Amino acid sequence: MKKRGIQGVAMEYDIRAGIAALPHSPIALIAEYGRDRAGLIPLWFGEGDVPTPDVIAEAGIRAIRDGEVFYTHQRGLPRLREALSDYLGRVHGVPVGVERITVTSSGMTAIMKVMQTLIDPGDEVAVVSPIWPNVTASVKVMGGVPRAVPMRLGNHGWDLDLDALFDACGPRTRAIFVNSPGNPTGWMMELDDMRRVMEFARSRGLWVISDEVYARLVYDRPAAPSFVEVAEPDDKLIIVNSFSKNWAMTGWRLGWIVAPPALGPVLENLVQYSTSGTPAFVQHAGIAALEHGEPFLVEMVDRCRQARDAVCAALERLPNVHSTCPPAAFYAFFRVDGERDSMALAQRIIDEAAVGLAPGTAFGEGGEGYLRLCFASRLDRVEEAMARIAGVLG
Amino acid sequence: MKKRGIQGVAMEYDIRAGIAALPHSPIALIAEYGRDRAGLIPLWFGEGDVPTPDVIAEAGIRAIRDGEVFYTHQRGLPRLREALSDYLGRVHGVPVGVERITVTSSGMTAIMKVMQTLIDPGDEVAVVSPIWPNVTASVKVMGGVPRAVPMRLGNHGWDLDLDALFDACGPRTRAIFVNSPGNPTGWMMELDDMRRVMEFARSRGLWVISDEVYARLVYDRPAAPSFVEVAEPDDKLIIVNSFSKNWAMTGWRLGWIVAPPALGPVLENLVQYSTSGTPAFVQHAGIAALEHGEPFLVEMVDRCRQARDAVCAALERLPNVHSTCPPAAFYAFFRVDGERDSMALAQRIIDEAAVGLAPGTAFGEGGEGYLRLCFASRLDRVEEAMARIAGVLG
Repeated sequence: MKKRGIQGVAMEYDIRAGIAALPHSPIALIAEYGRDRAGLIPLWFGEGDVPTPDVIAEAGIRAIRDGEVFYTHQRGLPRLREALSDYLGRVHGVPVGVERITVTSSGMTAIMKVMQTLIDPGDEVAVVSPIWPNVTASVKVMGGVPRAVPMRLGNHGWDLDLDALFDACGPRTRAIFVNSPGNPTGWMMELDDMRRVMEFARSRGLWVISDEVYARLVYDRPAAPSFVEVAEPDDKLIIVNSFSKNWAMTGWRLGWIVAPPALGPVLENLVQYSTSGTPAFVQHAGIAALEHGEPFLVEMVDRCRQARDAVCAALERLPNVHSTCPPAAFYAFFRVDGERDSMALAQRIIDEAAVGLAPGTAFGEGGEGYLRLCFASRLDRVEEAMARIAGVLG
Repeated sequence: MKKRGIQGVAMEYDIRAGIAALPHSPIALIAEYGRDRAGLIPLWFGEGDVPTPDVIAEAGIRAIRDGEVFYTHQRGLPRLREALSDYLGRVHGVPVGVERITVTSSGMTAIMKVMQTLIDPGDEVAVVSPIWPNVTASVKVMGGVPRAVPMRLGNHGWDLDLDALFDACGPRTRAIFVNSPGNPTGWMMELDDMRRVMEFARSRGLWVISDEVYARLVYDRPAAPSFVEVAEPDDKLIIVNSFSKNWAMTGWRLGWIVAPPALGPVLENLVQYSTSGTPAFVQHAGIAALEHGEPFLVEMVDRCRQARDAVCAALERLPNVHSTCPPAAFYAFFRVDGERDSMALAQRIIDEAAVGLAPGTAFGEGGEGYLRLCFASRLDRVEEAMARIAGVLG
């Protein structure tokens, strides 16, 4: 696959060197490679195969027809922020006040606003890796330097060495970025470790940025541990989250931030000066998701659990494949003996099995050699995909 | 009115100094001051009083029901980009290829992406002023320095001294920012001046960033001159635009960028890494606007012309008021003898006349002392507002 020569653009056009050097997402590249393959089963994106539930979509439609099509509150509709406060309190068992909540146009937009708030050129962010490539890219957009702290796949699943994480924090470090449950690994940080991270951050004056997008996609309990449970409202903790995965709303672009109350006016400014708010009708869909979306979520987790079990069983039958059955999120992340070039392997699986997987190289340090498979799909399609993959790898 | 102590946040929380220093938009502050005033006629925002036309809104609704609720093309739906290419060719009489077009989640988002592409800390942008405050703020978010070049209100309307603009460009200047037709002044740059700006930029290797959001809200011709008419596709020209004003779509958050084709992959990356795309159903509404929105636009310009004429006539009757009847956009921008504090005057007009105007101090250098009135409203409401204002100023 030919890589695009973005670097050349910088020379010719005098744009920021850091921007010209931003890599294309290998997930986008592999999708481009395989998109038109006949009969392909695409499991490369972090997205399910069912549309947004009617109870949510129709709330958005009603709001359009009710004329909710003007400029709106920059930090989000008060009713949505209150519904988020209720939801977070319910899920995590601790109060999360409305004054801590800012609505954003997606989890990605939330992450970019956090980087705009914190990262000056040369500032470092310690990032637990492998991780979704957009996180490290957003640090680079601000001229910052991500420092990856790779986890290892051991006998008991993915393992983060907390001392390695703390050792990665030097004089230029501004923040620690944790994504738990994690994309692509499905790794989940337990509350005790969250407490240790928060204590370390406090002792060094660092920010903790916690991406909790998969907090509800958990298979052994109702919700993953959240940093909100181990922090005070005024702690230097920022949580980013999204409606995308819980309620099949990837295409609505709706997310939120939990931050210290004092940051409210700062984030309000950054919303004003970067997106100028999120469509009110999209926010009304979000209110419906929080108020009426729990049955859908329960059903989806159940569906994902079945698909996960099928994928894990199939991978276990392949002696040359190494993986762990993820306790959370909706990805299998596995490597194959002797296969070091994940992009080449992902292409081979498209060519020979017509299944679209994301190459591990997309996910930074510790990711190369792995493949990511999203199992948030109909069981028979996931089973068919696994049979095809076994035909290539088995 | 108490100003919020955002600066204090930086001290307490160790966020970027430049972000802590970002001012709250005085437009937001005055709206907060007057929002609950009984019987208020709010003319402070750049927004009309009619909802999105049905032909557009229903296209968005249809797309939701058709399941257009998944992740989508980062640079925009191919059909929308083609429709934009057709539209721009039709309006400006020159071809604008699809490969130059990137869809964004609003004009504001477009501006932020341009700053992310071009502005390293310390880089300067020469900005024709008075101007919408979000433009200079977006430069500051990237650590850049806006250099305002204020226009003057002369006997023949607002006047830009091109030599002053060129003199403002020094060794650190990366770009010239022009917003024509202009918010808040309604000033319009003619094609000859655009040509001179483009030639100067070429000779110095500078970028031209042209905000053409009001290009169709013009009262003496079908469209304002566009930089696209005086530039080659490969010139260092970036145009930002929006669906908001033309088609009463402020709440949909949909805009676009025209840039050299070589910048396409760079902008695609920046979309991926800052918003990850615009809802497909919002884009379908945009396609409907381009294909079926012309009658609405013609009607709205006609309605704005009537309101403009009423406002201009009323202002002319006030001997202590100085203004010019704007050839474009939908704002009156005027000053009152002896009134130097536009925020105080805007508050007085809320208190004594129950009319909401934006204080000129919001619009940077050359703006203080002025008030901005958006006349994109029902004629009888605009007339009532002018009668009330005359009662205070007359």
